[in-house]
Amino acid sequence: MIQATISSSCLRKPGRVVFNTEIEEKLALKHGIIERLTGIKQRYYLDDHESLNSIASDACSEAILHSGIDPAAIDMLIFYTDVLPTIRNKSGLLKRTYEVSAHILATLNQSGFEIRCECINMVGSCVVFISALQIATSLIHSGIKKNVLIVGASNNSTFLDPVDKNVFMAFGDGTAATLISASEKKDIFDFHRMTDGSGYDAGYFEEHGRLIIDRKRVAEFAPMAIRKAITGLLDKTGASMKDVDLVIPHQAGYRIIKNGIDLVGIPENKVYFCLEKFGNTGAPSVQIALSSAIEQNRLNKGDIAVLVAFGIGWNYGAALFRY
Amino acid sequence: MIQATISSSCLRKPGRVVFNTEIEEKLALKHGIIERLTGIKQRYYLDDHESLNSIASDACSEAILHSGIDPAAIDMLIFYTDVLPTIRNKSGLLKRTYEVSAHILATLNQSGFEIRCECINMVGSCVVFISALQIATSLIHSGIKKNVLIVGASNNSTFLDPVDKNVFMAFGDGTAATLISASEKKDIFDFHRMTDGSGYDAGYFEEHGRLIIDRKRVAEFAPMAIRKAITGLLDKTGASMKDVDLVIPHQAGYRIIKNGIDLVGIPENKVYFCLEKFGNTGAPSVQIALSSAIEQNRLNKGDIAVLVAFGIGWNYGAALFRY
Repeated sequence: MIQATISSSCLRKPGRVVFNTEIEEKLALKHGIIERLTGIKQRYYLDDHESLNSIASDACSEAILHSGIDPAAIDMLIFYTDVLPTIRNKSGLLKRTYEVSAHILATLNQSGFEIRCECINMVGSCVVFISALQIATSLIHSGIKKNVLIVGASNNSTFLDPVDKNVFMAFGDGTAATLISASEKKDIFDFHRMTDGSGYDAGYFEEHGRLIIDRKRVAEFAPMAIRKAITGLLDKTGASMKDVDLVIPHQAGYRIIKNGIDLVGIPENKVYFCLEKFGNTGAPSVQIALSSAIEQNRLNKGDIAVLVAFGIGWNYGAALFRY
Repeated sequence: MIQATISSSCLRKPGRVVFNTEIEEKLALKHGIIERLTGIKQRYYLDDHESLNSIASDACSEAILHSGIDPAAIDMLIFYTDVLPTIRNKSGLLKRTYEVSAHILATLNQSGFEIRCECINMVGSCVVFISALQIATSLIHSGIKKNVLIVGASNNSTFLDPVDKNVFMAFGDGTAATLISASEKKDIFDFHRMTDGSGYDAGYFEEHGRLIIDRKRVAEFAPMAIRKAITGLLDKTGASMKDVDLVIPHQAGYRIIKNGIDLVGIPENKVYFCLEKFGNTGAPSVQIALSSAIEQNRLNKGDIAVLVAFGIGWNYGAALFRY
């Protein structure tokens, strides 16, 4: 069976950095409370020139260049998001549900990358990257594809309502692109990915607009999901946490992650955090965390790592790989 | 490598049958013109009790029962649609972007099917089923999954605007579910699936509501896409149209299909049509056609068939399989 490896993974910061002070003023909150509650110091929002397509295309360009792989060898593009698509014209962001993956392909081609391939769109809560990674790995295993570019992007900020202060303070925008390639060495080992449908109504975009999250239910579910995802993965693979150099979780919030890793008995120094810089970026959050860990040399070539994500649905999943 | 087969494929008709006369009256069109222009005699719309989740769950139930496979052996559910999700409460259909696949899983569990599995959501134009089928096949090839349930559903009728008479007269609602299973025999042979991003703006849901389609561009692209998809598949597999018992196309309209098969030189009696009964059901259309061909004994056990689909993006693709 053909094996798969991560050729590159790059994040792209949206143009507008938003510090807690701005959010605290807007929501009439005490100075310092957001960081105390969530661990978040800042997040990024799209600036006035950016769109879902523009940030995702930029992340793709960076991942392609960084991988050194011939763009013509890319045979699949998987785009995913948690939000409803928007598109930018002269007057601003338009609400438009459309073929975003095809738009990204067109943008990459306009930028000089000659890519002819299949494009698909996935949508869902914060576990989509784990599923997309498993799909890419499987398509490579079976010889159907050789280089699969996965790009997640979200402009959650467009869907935030100041009425729900907890959601408003936590979420940010972001994107990351990861190129998965055929390899002789087995670097992507295994996955554990499950859904428990009872949480399908715990979060949604009301009237296709405002993001609503039942924080109480999420706070109960999320630490258990971290435990189930990681122990399920370790049971399946026979690996032990001693073999793992770094755990990279969905950056939902410091307390949720801490409660989850405590349930599995993982020391905090083995867990990667970047929520202080990005906030919770929704679906692409765990892919952004992967890319950030690489950028900061917290994840180095040869390291064994676990990705773990959890979200509305309930969905949860984990992946074991060597970078 | 583990092989894959179609264990079952079942469509479900939404509750309200809508004849051309009703549409012709609504749009102030001459009696008989819709059938003359499109070949469509009727289509189905959701009735007042149905939703995306309810029709999709019903199709899944039927496919599971029909396959004879133990529901507990299903290890993945792929839901896809072309439309924005809606959910039904007492007052009607609510606009709500949410985890539809998790909702379907919850509904199936409430109906007594004990399924614990991964659920994902895909979204896109009328080629999604080809991609989903390729993903399911690949997950089975690589041993990651054994039984993948693919369910497509759409309530296009909710998004139609009488101002665009051509779109309004053509579209209907529908759903189908297909169970793909591990098999010793190679029944799913190969795929050819491509995207040419230049058509990303030829169709979309404006303001996350009204369906807009640039019919002129689609009518130019679609026949060529049928040709590219089928000739690409035949080139890749070395198969010839003589080996193929039935071609099952996306039911976009009689003329589009006729122009496409004429380009490849496929005789009309080798092509399955069901648009007279269902209209154009969007993304699930080709999966509904597959299920209808089985239901009507046009596709029989052992037959070799080609699925071909094309849509906004531009996306196009074809699959070669033995039923």
